[in-house]
Amino acid sequence: MTLDTLDTPAALLDRPRMENNIARMQERMNALGVRFRPHVKTSKSIDVVQAQIEAGAQGITVSTLKEAEAFFAAGVTDILYAVGIAPGKLARALALRRKGCDLKLLVDNAVTAKAVAEFGQQHGETFEVYIEVDTDGHRSGLAPEHDALIEVGRVLQDNGARVGGVMTHAGASYALNTPVSLAACAEQERAGCVRAAERLRGAGVPCKVVSVGSTPTALSARTLEGVTEVRAGVYVFFDLVMHNVGVCALNDIALSVLTTVIGHQPEKGWAIVDAGWMAMSRDRGTSNQETDFGYGLPCSLDGTPLPDFVMTGANQEHGILSVVQTSGSDAASPTDIEARLPIGTKLRILPIHACATAAQFPEYHALSAEGEVTVWSRFYGW
Amino acid sequence: MTLDTLDTPAALLDRPRMENNIARMQERMNALGVRFRPHVKTSKSIDVVQAQIEAGAQGITVSTLKEAEAFFAAGVTDILYAVGIAPGKLARALALRRKGCDLKLLVDNAVTAKAVAEFGQQHGETFEVYIEVDTDGHRSGLAPEHDALIEVGRVLQDNGARVGGVMTHAGASYALNTPVSLAACAEQERAGCVRAAERLRGAGVPCKVVSVGSTPTALSARTLEGVTEVRAGVYVFFDLVMHNVGVCALNDIALSVLTTVIGHQPEKGWAIVDAGWMAMSRDRGTSNQETDFGYGLPCSLDGTPLPDFVMTGANQEHGILSVVQTSGSDAASPTDIEARLPIGTKLRILPIHACATAAQFPEYHALSAEGEVTVWSRFYGW
Repeated sequence: MTLDTLDTPAALLDRPRMENNIARMQERMNALGVRFRPHVKTSKSIDVVQAQIEAGAQGITVSTLKEAEAFFAAGVTDILYAVGIAPGKLARALALRRKGCDLKLLVDNAVTAKAVAEFGQQHGETFEVYIEVDTDGHRSGLAPEHDALIEVGRVLQDNGARVGGVMTHAGASYALNTPVSLAACAEQERAGCVRAAERLRGAGVPCKVVSVGSTPTALSARTLEGVTEVRAGVYVFFDLVMHNVGVCALNDIALSVLTTVIGHQPEKGWAIVDAGWMAMSRDRGTSNQETDFGYGLPCSLDGTPLPDFVMTGANQEHGILSVVQTSGSDAASPTDIEARLPIGTKLRILPIHACATAAQFPEYHALSAEGEVTVWSRFYGW
Repeated sequence: MTLDTLDTPAALLDRPRMENNIARMQERMNALGVRFRPHVKTSKSIDVVQAQIEAGAQGITVSTLKEAEAFFAAGVTDILYAVGIAPGKLARALALRRKGCDLKLLVDNAVTAKAVAEFGQQHGETFEVYIEVDTDGHRSGLAPEHDALIEVGRVLQDNGARVGGVMTHAGASYALNTPVSLAACAEQERAGCVRAAERLRGAGVPCKVVSVGSTPTALSARTLEGVTEVRAGVYVFFDLVMHNVGVCALNDIALSVLTTVIGHQPEKGWAIVDAGWMAMSRDRGTSNQETDFGYGLPCSLDGTPLPDFVMTGANQEHGILSVVQTSGSDAASPTDIEARLPIGTKLRILPIHACATAAQFPEYHALSAEGEVTVWSRFYGW
């Protein structure tokens, strides 16, 4: 199987780029002296995670119990479920632990903490639980100085659960785009999470693990004093949002969607391709960044970006590639679109958000440096 | 299995609502005297399509060859593949026809028309081909008065393909929201497609089928003179975009995402749920409509909308429900969010765009009027 014979749309994975991304992150974590626990929600693929583990990752982070079940079945035992658990999911978590999975749960409130601990007591299981810390206000978790932090720790401890550590995710870093602001965000993430751990320890609650991470902050932290592990997900593929944030080059982006030109509207300078939002996803994450790549950046079949085109529109199975007039460039004029991108032309489209684009596909087509294509399955659902 | 025991997130299908939507559209088509060919890209589910066929649908419309293959395997033979075919997909189309599938293809340019016809000649197959007409400028197709319309018809005919008809999709109707503008759009769609058929017939190219459709125009057309069949997809579930367009009530929306409250940020008036964009999709189709429902409209477990909440944010597996202050209502104050929506509360979230939300799930949980839950599988990929 080669690129020329693949049906479209397909999720292409450039293996040399992916391996380079994996090595870059792992080397950085090694230099900072922390364990690295990749977030596998991006790939949901055993083959990808195997490459991360071979490079030095220790344990994985998951966003669903289905991920935990699938990766445990594939032999990974050290798993952090990094979404506050719904009490109704405790039976599934228990089943995993009873099979030998070292599954760690997450809570950010006393009600859930009590439910987890009591469920464990009822079933003779000591759950290991992390407490979620909010270091940037973007989502869930307890602020490092919040009164409830200690309360949650004590509720867990007093009801028979084990407090494994604290964890935070500086998702607000996705909105930044300068090295200085990213380093400041990483330091805020580190300092807040370390402070939460210190408060817990000061109150007599053990807190061994201090877990931080997001792709931008992991790549921007100057020091990680007090941190024991880092998590990151999208770095394995990267995408146009991360490019705009400033943590990868365009030619680091390992995931793209292979597509075929199926029509034109020459008066509008449009080429129509067979990758719509069902393939690219509806993610428009670059719409409020400095460079808006629409639904994706078209590249030639060999992966070279076509900077005078952008995917400006997407229906379910139709993508609209438009000529963008960039000053000073020899951009195509709208009327030569049929000559520039004839019917049947195959292109690669770089994704806005790799996690969202990958999720649309049942499998990756992994492309080696030699041009060989291998099918790597991925899963979905909950 | 009942709603109370279902794990979250799950794609709930309210069967009475769905059956009502199916009956409403079919009755309308019967009254207008046209065949109805539902677009199955919305559901990708044999169970749903079976209900449409039992109500009177004749044939189906698909957006991918995978849909054609799956529904043909399930016994549906009359299939229109309503996306301009990429020449590289002709071998798959041929294989379907050879198995007895009455698959119709679509083209909107002479290059593809020639490729289809010649591929047919090479393999001894007379492909039935529709010509795509552009009646609203929103995507692909040839304008009714375009010179190339006749050229495409002749290229097909002269090279051994059969011109089955013309088809158009008034996707621009999604941007409208008044009965008058919708009726005008439906008339523009009808008149343009009929005109294209007349031009072809006048040039000696047979054109039996005149196929139009979109959910808004199908429900707004006052007459369909000259039209032989109508296609529509999202009507089977409806969604918040369609509600804003004005073609369904909130309690017609048959698809929702079952979710559980997993946390709060009381100072912000946020409840955090375990349905993020992976469950809802990244579709923000109501963002430029009169009422922006964010990522979805929360309802209680029995389906009653909670009009003072909206899903304002979504990460991969986290949804943020915010209190919206609606003047004159007894809206919740942000600080009582923990009492209003305690940890463990199950909610249904109405989707922005049903096609996109449904695509995130491997299965539907179909809920009968009696509260019985049945699993209906759906597929994805290409």
